[in-house]
Amino acid sequence: MLPLLLLLLAPQGCGARYEPTWESLDSRPLPPWFDELKFGIFIHWGVFSVPAFGSEWFWWYWQKEKREPYVKFMETHYPPGFRYEDFGPLFTAEFFDANQWADILQASGAKYVVLTSKHHEGFTLWGSKYSWNWNAVNLGPKQDIVAALATAIRKRTDLRFGLYHSLFEWFNPLFLYDASNVFNTRQFPTAKSLPELYEIVTKYQPEILWSDGDGNAPDTYWNSTGFLAWLYNDSPVRDTVVTNDRWGAGSICKHGGYYTCSDRYNPGHLLPHKWENCMTIDKQSWGYRSNTKLSDYLTIEELVKQLVETVSCGGNLLMNIGPTHDGRIAIVFEERLRQMGFWLKINGEAIYGTKPWRTQNDTITSGVWYTFKPKDDVVYAVFLNWPVSGTLELGDPKTIVGETEVELIGHKGQLKWVSLGEKGMIVTLPQLTPNQLPCQWGWTLKLTNVN
Amino acid sequence: MLPLLLLLLAPQGCGARYEPTWESLDSRPLPPWFDELKFGIFIHWGVFSVPAFGSEWFWWYWQKEKREPYVKFMETHYPPGFRYEDFGPLFTAEFFDANQWADILQASGAKYVVLTSKHHEGFTLWGSKYSWNWNAVNLGPKQDIVAALATAIRKRTDLRFGLYHSLFEWFNPLFLYDASNVFNTRQFPTAKSLPELYEIVTKYQPEILWSDGDGNAPDTYWNSTGFLAWLYNDSPVRDTVVTNDRWGAGSICKHGGYYTCSDRYNPGHLLPHKWENCMTIDKQSWGYRSNTKLSDYLTIEELVKQLVETVSCGGNLLMNIGPTHDGRIAIVFEERLRQMGFWLKINGEAIYGTKPWRTQNDTITSGVWYTFKPKDDVVYAVFLNWPVSGTLELGDPKTIVGETEVELIGHKGQLKWVSLGEKGMIVTLPQLTPNQLPCQWGWTLKLTNVN
Amino acid sequence: MLPLLLLLLAPQGCGARYEPTWESLDSRPLPPWFDELKFGIFIHWGVFSVPAFGSEWFWWYWQKEKREPYVKFMETHYPPGFRYEDFGPLFTAEFFDANQWADILQASGAKYVVLTSKHHEGFTLWGSKYSWNWNAVNLGPKQDIVAALATAIRKRTDLRFGLYHSLFEWFNPLFLYDASNVFNTRQFPTAKSLPELYEIVTKYQPEILWSDGDGNAPDTYWNSTGFLAWLYNDSPVRDTVVTNDRWGAGSICKHGGYYTCSDRYNPGHLLPHKWENCMTIDKQSWGYRSNTKLSDYLTIEELVKQLVETVSCGGNLLMNIGPTHDGRIAIVFEERLRQMGFWLKINGEAIYGTKPWRTQNDTITSGVWYTFKPKDDVVYAVFLNWPVSGTLELGDPKTIVGETEVELIGHKGQLKWVSLGEKGMIVTLPQLTPNQLPCQWGWTLKLTNVN
Amino acid sequence: MLPLLLLLLAPQGCGARYEPTWESLDSRPLPPWFDELKFGIFIHWGVFSVPAFGSEWFWWYWQKEKREPYVKFMETHYPPGFRYEDFGPLFTAEFFDANQWADILQASGAKYVVLTSKHHEGFTLWGSKYSWNWNAVNLGPKQDIVAALATAIRKRTDLRFGLYHSLFEWFNPLFLYDASNVFNTRQFPTAKSLPELYEIVTKYQPEILWSDGDGNAPDTYWNSTGFLAWLYNDSPVRDTVVTNDRWGAGSICKHGGYYTCSDRYNPGHLLPHKWENCMTIDKQSWGYRSNTKLSDYLTIEELVKQLVETVSCGGNLLMNIGPTHDGRIAIVFEERLRQMGFWLKINGEAIYGTKPWRTQNDTITSGVWYTFKPKDDVVYAVFLNWPVSGTLELGDPKTIVGETEVELIGHKGQLKWVSLGEKGMIVTLPQLTPNQLPCQWGWTLKLTNVN
Repeated sequence: MLPLLLLLLAPQGCGARYEPTWESLDSRPLPPWFDELKFGIFIHWGVFSVPAFGSEWFWWYWQKEKREPYVKFMETHYPPGFRYEDFGPLFTAEFFDANQWADILQASGAKYVVLTSKHHEGFTLWGSKYSWNWNAVNLGPKQDIVAALATAIRKRTDLRFGLYHSLFEWFNPLFLYDASNVFNTRQFPTAKSLPELYEIVTKYQPEILWSDGDGNAPDTYWNSTGFLAWLYNDSPVRDTVVTNDRWGAGSICKHGGYYTCSDRYNPGHLLPHKWENCMTIDKQSWGYRSNTKLSDYLTIEELVKQLVETVSCGGNLLMNIGPTHDGRIAIVFEERLRQMGFWLKINGEAIYGTKPWRTQNDTITSGVWYTFKPKDDVVYAVFLNWPVSGTLELGDPKTIVGETEVELIGHKGQLKWVSLGEKGMIVTLPQLTPNQLPCQWGWTLKLTNVN
Repeated sequence: MLPLLLLLLAPQGCGARYEPTWESLDSRPLPPWFDELKFGIFIHWGVFSVPAFGSEWFWWYWQKEKREPYVKFMETHYPPGFRYEDFGPLFTAEFFDANQWADILQASGAKYVVLTSKHHEGFTLWGSKYSWNWNAVNLGPKQDIVAALATAIRKRTDLRFGLYHSLFEWFNPLFLYDASNVFNTRQFPTAKSLPELYEIVTKYQPEILWSDGDGNAPDTYWNSTGFLAWLYNDSPVRDTVVTNDRWGAGSICKHGGYYTCSDRYNPGHLLPHKWENCMTIDKQSWGYRSNTKLSDYLTIEELVKQLVETVSCGGNLLMNIGPTHDGRIAIVFEERLRQMGFWLKINGEAIYGTKPWRTQNDTITSGVWYTFKPKDDVVYAVFLNWPVSGTLELGDPKTIVGETEVELIGHKGQLKWVSLGEKGMIVTLPQLTPNQLPCQWGWTLKLTNVN
Repeated sequence: MLPLLLLLLAPQGCGARYEPTWESLDSRPLPPWFDELKFGIFIHWGVFSVPAFGSEWFWWYWQKEKREPYVKFMETHYPPGFRYEDFGPLFTAEFFDANQWADILQASGAKYVVLTSKHHEGFTLWGSKYSWNWNAVNLGPKQDIVAALATAIRKRTDLRFGLYHSLFEWFNPLFLYDASNVFNTRQFPTAKSLPELYEIVTKYQPEILWSDGDGNAPDTYWNSTGFLAWLYNDSPVRDTVVTNDRWGAGSICKHGGYYTCSDRYNPGHLLPHKWENCMTIDKQSWGYRSNTKLSDYLTIEELVKQLVETVSCGGNLLMNIGPTHDGRIAIVFEERLRQMGFWLKINGEAIYGTKPWRTQNDTITSGVWYTFKPKDDVVYAVFLNWPVSGTLELGDPKTIVGETEVELIGHKGQLKWVSLGEKGMIVTLPQLTPNQLPCQWGWTLKLTNVN
Repeated sequence: MLPLLLLLLAPQGCGARYEPTWESLDSRPLPPWFDELKFGIFIHWGVFSVPAFGSEWFWWYWQKEKREPYVKFMETHYPPGFRYEDFGPLFTAEFFDANQWADILQASGAKYVVLTSKHHEGFTLWGSKYSWNWNAVNLGPKQDIVAALATAIRKRTDLRFGLYHSLFEWFNPLFLYDASNVFNTRQFPTAKSLPELYEIVTKYQPEILWSDGDGNAPDTYWNSTGFLAWLYNDSPVRDTVVTNDRWGAGSICKHGGYYTCSDRYNPGHLLPHKWENCMTIDKQSWGYRSNTKLSDYLTIEELVKQLVETVSCGGNLLMNIGPTHDGRIAIVFEERLRQMGFWLKINGEAIYGTKPWRTQNDTITSGVWYTFKPKDDVVYAVFLNWPVSGTLELGDPKTIVGETEVELIGHKGQLKWVSLGEKGMIVTLPQLTPNQLPCQWGWTLKLTNVN
């Protein structure tokens, strides 16, 4: 009934409309803003942030798989009979300050943010009326987290706001009922996931809809094509919304918007279809874990490397943090985000708005990754190791006599280089004291007019 | 009764004994190990780590001073009638792993550790029988924290173990009774603080006894001289124990062992008496605070500066961390500790076992601090800023023709320099790529044979 | 969909079927067992049993009406931000023993039991899949309370089992949504109340369906006539089920099965339609209250009076108890139930299976109530006060010479009496010591062959 | 120090003083008020009222004896690691109203009240400064329960106030230390039990000091004779205080004030020394138990029997109730107390101020107990069963021609009787309807001028 209603209210498109078929939907061009922005922050936050142990799949590992560390953790720390649902009121978010978050997120140099509006646990960070007593307005934070963050993010005009949404819910009795009927009944999508999808799009107008969690059910069960046709034709975000490829068993890396293919997907070579590398600073978990050690986190060097590799190969990087149950971005995440922002402040022009070059990484010197700005005829070579020799040999750019110019971004003046003809060029780097270095962790050569 | 008993059991000293007077006690030479080790880690851990808000003086600020943020914090987060004592069972220490802590502490390059065996709240981290239902064995951790950490620390032979102990307890009814009698009654020291002091010395044999918290009562109330005479004459640690200067109103910076004078004491010039700069990585609190931002923590650059300044001026640095209520060293602390250890691994010889030189910091170039190793005739000049010019002018060391040698620690070979006669010298630093730098945050010149 | 399915599966009635109209439904004769059994126990149990304060309408009075004692109670006893939903996990039912309850219920002499399967709070005492995380299987008791009690009750063949069910739920967001649309939308009955009604009838086959709580919505909103048509035509209890009159705004005392008219309805005169007096031992609340005094409870004398008056006037008595949150029948309730059972053991024949007589209470002597057994030509006169004179004057029964006989139930032998002709009779009561009295609180004369 | 101080301050006695020896102390006459009042209420209230399971010895049975039901109870209902001490904050006493209690206690007909100021758990119901964080002012009730009840009780001039006090504390580390030294050290009585005894006597001036719990230590360990000498010579209650016989291993039924001999002591015959039958309405526990059934409580018939038997044999009855953790007198206790009061309102003259007669119970008719008022030459015969015959044969009172008179208390007029000479008398009871009976459960004949 709800979609019907919205259809009637929706503004009439002026031209062709998408059909609820993959053939039609897949033909929609990806709104160009997404490729330009390159770098986003993923936020996994939910009731799983309360136990903050092991993984955001805590509930499943504990109750379904009965993994020993999880079972033991509960036996040790909670009273007998304590349920996952009882974590809900403990998800207090007492220190949550959306503007403080937005400041930190913005400081990272990211250009979009994707928040888990609802993970597989089913807890909605907005006050869904289809999820009574299991949403952030009713219990725990006692506020509309989605709205609060959306507002704060959008106040910063260089940031866009997206929502993650899990189709299935591990232990929803209606989903389990449908599953027991091999998805021949559809009580769950009808009563829960579809109404909620329409609700979040209409209420929060996300610019990314990051779908996940098909629960091994086909897209027909979820009515994903029906929903996407509405999203593309009639929703308030029909012109700008970007979505991904997780819309039912078999759709991943094949249908929908950009491809995500797998978690931490970083193929190392160019792909013909726009893709995104979603990965997480904590090597083992997307949700916050309280009991970690420093070595569990990627270093800033490793993160810069991820970004550079991903963008060179045509992907976007969606780097994840997990806030705490009481609403804080832990210091280690704040530090990594600010470090990333510091690096991008210098090197951002080699990232934002670039295209993949004809080659991705240098054939001679390892750790050199290329990006490209066609309209300026500029090739960027980001090198992750500063050569002891003081010269950097690049095997791929071919110089043009009298035209080629080389700069070190963040350093004034042009660098000397010698051509190796078809074999590339050798660039002489400046000799800099620690204070003179434009940045750490990776440096960028800007090559103008090379072939 | 207990001291009497212990006196009888104590081995008889072979020579002179200290009298329970400041004149006699102050004449005891400080055991030399303390000056040699230079760098220790202070650990503030207790029930105050549970609210983890504002300060380890939480109880006092909330209940006695009724400071608004504290009152509000309690109103917001806890039920009406919730008492500070009710935090006790929530001090769970569930992730506490003494060996993991010791690994991190050792990795910092510190050579001693001082743990708050009991802070002003009165909660004992050991199972004091004079503190029933308010100690770590009875409730909360349900283990002897002092014993566990002492054992783990001592397994690492380069680490020594000390204990902080607060004389007074904010709200102990016996202390309040004595205070209401202007300290003419002594129920509290008799029943509580003295029995506990004898107990921790006898049981844990700390090599530092870091006294604090006189509660505005004179040392005669605390019987500090009586206790110290026992400590120096008859206790099991009489030969090696080091103590500080906080033994009663008026004793600070005047009596006892080394001087602490005030928190974060860093005078910037040489003192005639051994002293210690106790300071804390979190700029605002000794105990853990959960609601912080990155800028609340000193950077590694600032910490290295503290160390270098303190040691140059004859002090030791006691750098504080506050573990969490559940027993973790937060990642930001681990990172700072490991960074410090990384720096000391390179530059440690300019710190450990050194003496103050004839001048502490350079008169020409700011940010250069000296230490001295008389037996090797080596002066160390730690410089905190790498000069853009590539040369470092030092106004104080006078070169000796044919003898003076200069090295950059962590870099092979000798550096070139020119003498300025009475005006010092100019050292030419090597030109190094980022990877070739021996370290960051501060570098050390080793000057052999200078005047 | 569910009703449709059940319709298809339902056994085909052999004759006429009820139409979903009041005219048709009201024509169904009440199954005769209900009038015969006379006395049932009502059980109000739910999450409201946790605060156990004021009333089972706790949630409404606290959150909606914001009555001061309720607001104060919460402020005093619970942390800020504590929600009614947070009482759910505290509804522990740890001592609940269905067989123990059934023993006590049976001992009361009641012949049927009506349990609140779901009160206005929406919490279901069975594991409704339409009420995830708000039902007794998911949280709190962690068991199917309805099933457990149904089984225990039915093991006692003299007891029948019924279910109370609230149509509306105070704070269900779907109900509130419909209400805000003046009940022109029907999301709530479609998604919640109707599926649950079908579920409890099918699963538990209650012999009484005690509907309540129309929320000021008409029966058309609830589709009550549709449901009742199914209940009477096709449900598994279609032949025996009894229901009441609370099926939508305006239906009370007018449509449905027997009439309840109002809470504690006790008209004092004969009604032309079968009715029930539902009342409660605690004078102020149906749910358990922990903070009561002895005078808050009806005495056994008052309870016997209620029973006698109600039955005389053609009603059934449904006497309510409120178990505690931890699953106990409080001692005061157990005592009243056992006292009632003791009285009924003696006087039961004047209650069970009787019909109203031509007059209900005696016109001369107050406190004398009549019942009637036509097939035995017996009139029972229950007198609540033993006359000091030793003789009881009855104004209504007219004696028949040579036929009329009078007995005191529980006492052997016939009593002497004298006829007053049209003005009734005078009965001489026996002189009995305390131990010889058949019972206390009320006594029954059995009059055989009177007019 | 404290006793010394108090001795100095104490008013000087005008005559002989008691020595701290049993010989001297035992020679003190019992203040006469105690024997006159006959009937008191014992109140067991403390932290044990929180689990409210099994017994007020909960802590001991659970932790020391590890009895299975207790261990299981904790495993089922509380988180792992939950300690007995954690019950402290849950002892909320939120509904405690001392005046309401006093009303109920007064309504029982009791003339004195004895409250557990401290049971073996060590929790003090007053704000002892020797029991920090384990007393009712610091935690739980957050008020001085002893003071509140003392004030309310004393407002009713017919009630006296006493205090129970346990010498030992099961798990006090100082007591355990002394016990491990076979009571050759005395840290516990010095630091805890003696200061507290002086404190409660001085602060609350109890008229009964009901000592208990010697912990198998001799009175010399407790310094009981020293304390009692102070109590009898110099304390503010020296003239009126009554105490019992539990002052150290071996003192029970032998030394001190009146004898208690054992719990529920009811010898059935006359004793040469004043004694008290302390017993409890809940057959199994002194502390409140939440999980009980009606049959766990003595009936009013049984309670009246206890009172009558005890008083006939020269004892006082101290009937115990256990209030709930939230401060209520459970309805079942209120009912029994009010029933007792109802009975005493009629029959009190046969109880209060009486003496044992020459024989205690009748030799012919069982269930008849005698008391005596010498100054009025009245013998009371309480009979617990009303004879069916209507006549009561008494084997012991010998009538005096022309003088003997017999009344039924609560019934006007004299009864007929016939003398049996040396074999006693036969009394004809009146024939009464239920409403005419003066009371239930037991009736009293008042025999004037019998031998």
